Amino acid sequence: MTPTPPTLLVLDADPPPRLGRLTGRARIVHTDAGRLAERLPGADVLLVWDFTSHAVREAWPGDGPRPRWVHTASAGVDHLMCPELAASDTVVTNARGIFDQPIAEYVAALVLAAAKDLPRTLEYQRERTWRHRETRRVAGTRACVVGSGPIGRAIARTLKALGVTTALVGRVSRTGVHGPDDLDRLISRADWVIAAAPLTDRTYRMFDTHRFGVMQPSAFFVNVGRGGLVDEEALARALTRRWIAGAALDVFAAEPLPDDSPLWELPGLVVSPHMSGDTVGWRDELGVQFVELYERWAAGRSLPNVVDKTRGYVPGH
Amino acid sequence: MTPTPPTLLVLDADPPPRLGRLTGRARIVHTDAGRLAERLPGADVLLVWDFTSHAVREAWPGDGPRPRWVHTASAGVDHLMCPELAASDTVVTNARGIFDQPIAEYVAALVLAAAKDLPRTLEYQRERTWRHRETRRVAGTRACVVGSGPIGRAIARTLKALGVTTALVGRVSRTGVHGPDDLDRLISRADWVIAAAPLTDRTYRMFDTHRFGVMQPSAFFVNVGRGGLVDEEALARALTRRWIAGAALDVFAAEPLPDDSPLWELPGLVVSPHMSGDTVGWRDELGVQFVELYERWAAGRSLPNVVDKTRGYVPGH
Repeated sequence: MTPTPPTLLVLDADPPPRLGRLTGRARIVHTDAGRLAERLPGADVLLVWDFTSHAVREAWPGDGPRPRWVHTASAGVDHLMCPELAASDTVVTNARGIFDQPIAEYVAALVLAAAKDLPRTLEYQRERTWRHRETRRVAGTRACVVGSGPIGRAIARTLKALGVTTALVGRVSRTGVHGPDDLDRLISRADWVIAAAPLTDRTYRMFDTHRFGVMQPSAFFVNVGRGGLVDEEALARALTRRWIAGAALDVFAAEPLPDDSPLWELPGLVVSPHMSGDTVGWRDELGVQFVELYERWAAGRSLPNVVDKTRGYVPGH
Repeated sequence: MTPTPPTLLVLDADPPPRLGRLTGRARIVHTDAGRLAERLPGADVLLVWDFTSHAVREAWPGDGPRPRWVHTASAGVDHLMCPELAASDTVVTNARGIFDQPIAEYVAALVLAAAKDLPRTLEYQRERTWRHRETRRVAGTRACVVGSGPIGRAIARTLKALGVTTALVGRVSRTGVHGPDDLDRLISRADWVIAAAPLTDRTYRMFDTHRFGVMQPSAFFVNVGRGGLVDEEALARALTRRWIAGAALDVFAAEPLPDDSPLWELPGLVVSPHMSGDTVGWRDELGVQFVELYERWAAGRSLPNVVDKTRGYVPGH
């Protein structure tokens, strides 16, 4: 008699690729947010494929029967963490590694576009206006990257490759990483301030009126972490009052950004739809990564990418 | 008795900085294009500060008295070379070195902006439209840089730092540089084709219907060399017919680009006003460079940056 395979519950809108590899080794049940609560108690594994959903937080069964393992197809885990999940013995893993290089390139694109005044070039082109400007040299400028995980480190590597002097700031100081005490000093002289931290109690709205007030008038701010890292009203004021020169947000407190948000038209702000890490093939890479983790889990081996549930990210390095 | 200092004729619209350092060591005469012809015979040195002007070509005195040295505050010399100047013993020098890193960063900005679909992001922002797209990873793509002088080499270094496999094409093959015979093969598989060659008889309109027809439909073409490298009508057809995915032109056959040029509105084309090398402080750097060259010349020492007048660029390396 073949043993019954574990039940893999998949929270998705569109089904993930690659799960066909698990045929016979998992009983795969797809669910939407509405039926998640009733299905969670019977699941051994939960795959949060729809990482825009906050449904897990609301549906988590507390002390009752629950999945032993939750994997999210995202780097951040803020959308699914809740005190009951954090207190349980359920293991949470994330998609660490998939987004590092794409996000680093995206940040480099924004930094270079700002230095070379590309948005204004495109405006002048629309007006058929030939207007020469002097632009900025990126080599020799300074960046402060907030977030010392794999994404922050990839951003730092890429900016350094362009000749940018780059400092990393993490939750605790260690070799090559500054602690929070250095943050204000570093951003006060940075040309580029890059937010790439996980969203936790400690980082919630860390970019506020005080922080934008510390930055140089020539500074450019980029958020590729989570919308909650930024006090959006404070950023709007900082841009309107020219406390800083410009900014680019790929993530927002509310996504999709509502039609009537004033952020769409703020001077010097580039708005993009949470896409910095999503290069062609990304969904497939996420599927491959999950299948590999599942095979390890099913074989009883230890999992990589395990999230420290009280901190809200994968610790290490 | 103090000897009469050499006459330094400066073709300019705005006077260059730093020439105050030559007080007492040069008799400085400023001229516009209209009076250039009458003043050239009495000049020992000509500084072509207004590098947009073609006046030298028209005013050059032929066999008569003429400057012994002509310096142009530009990398290209196509705007001033004429058969009489080429045949004479007058030395021509250029601004080699000033524009390398700025232009390399500019090309990186355009490549990354294209890979990350930034122009479309800005369009959607104007329409307050939240539309997620998958973008391209730059690392692992291929570039072909046409032009193996210091600018082309700086572009290649910068793209390589971003993980792009980059081939350089020059007039003759040598270590690290492909010859013209490899050009079609290299551009046929390049994701990014970068024109950074001097404008000479050999490079005039080298990017024509044939060359755009060799490229991949996903290719992106960038011209930071001279407008004359490109058959603009052929490029327009290639973009309209989607032979290639996009292009960015910083230089044009006619500059400023006329208001009624169809290039302003071509699908997938970024138009910028010949500014790729012009970072803050560039005019000052050009002034400093000329003063250093003048001091060498006045001391009877050999000059760097000497242009091979028959080839139309500074040979070497």
